[in-house]
Amino acid sequence: MTRPVQLASLKFDASGLVPAIVQDSTTKRVLMFAWMNAESLELSLKLGETVFYSRSRSELWHKGATSGNTQKIVGIEVDCDQDVLLIEVIAAGPACHTGSESCFDNGVLGSEE
Amino acid sequence: MTRPVQLASLKFDASGLVPAIVQDSTTKRVLMFAWMNAESLELSLKLGETVFYSRSRSELWHKGATSGNTQKIVGIEVDCDQDVLLIEVIAAGPACHTGSESCFDNGVLGSEE
Repeated sequence: MTRPVQLASLKFDASGLVPAIVQDSTTKRVLMFAWMNAESLELSLKLGETVFYSRSRSELWHKGATSGNTQKIVGIEVDCDQDVLLIEVIAAGPACHTGSESCFDNGVLGSEE
Repeated sequence: MTRPVQLASLKFDASGLVPAIVQDSTTKRVLMFAWMNAESLELSLKLGETVFYSRSRSELWHKGATSGNTQKIVGIEVDCDQDVLLIEVIAAGPACHTGSESCFDNGVLGSEE
């Protein structure tokens, strides 16, 4: 669906943040989960690359700015409540600080092996 | 990767919650985003179906309990920080209350049409 959603209609939480799920636009693998505030989202749209808000460091975080592992934004889908973003990207390198392609490569809950 | 992660090692936030991304195990489409607390997660594992914690209603929410649109859990991946879940499911029906297969069918941010 291609109905446009304006940034002003997004619902940020009490901390001014919105969850962002990052997915590889080709393989559809979920790469990572992070948060955005209005400023990081505007910057993401301007740059065409993901910029998040780091809650631990209380600052903007341009993904790949130092590592080179940027994420080119292909599209941003908004959920039915307009309070969660699904960002489709083409990744220049691993999403995870561990070097894995995806942050969801850590283990399986309750698995026996 | 199949390394097991124990429920006790998960990091719930200050409200006792962890974000849960729900993905179709076959198509890899992201279906919805919700929250789980320890109780809903334990119940999900027990039932083999998604049970979330509704922040607006402050109660457990067994997805599909009334609608029939349950989500059978195929696997739960844990992220590198052990504070986000990626749940692979086989859905019995639409994930979204609008009747859409996915909650991410609402529109595209900043799209021109």
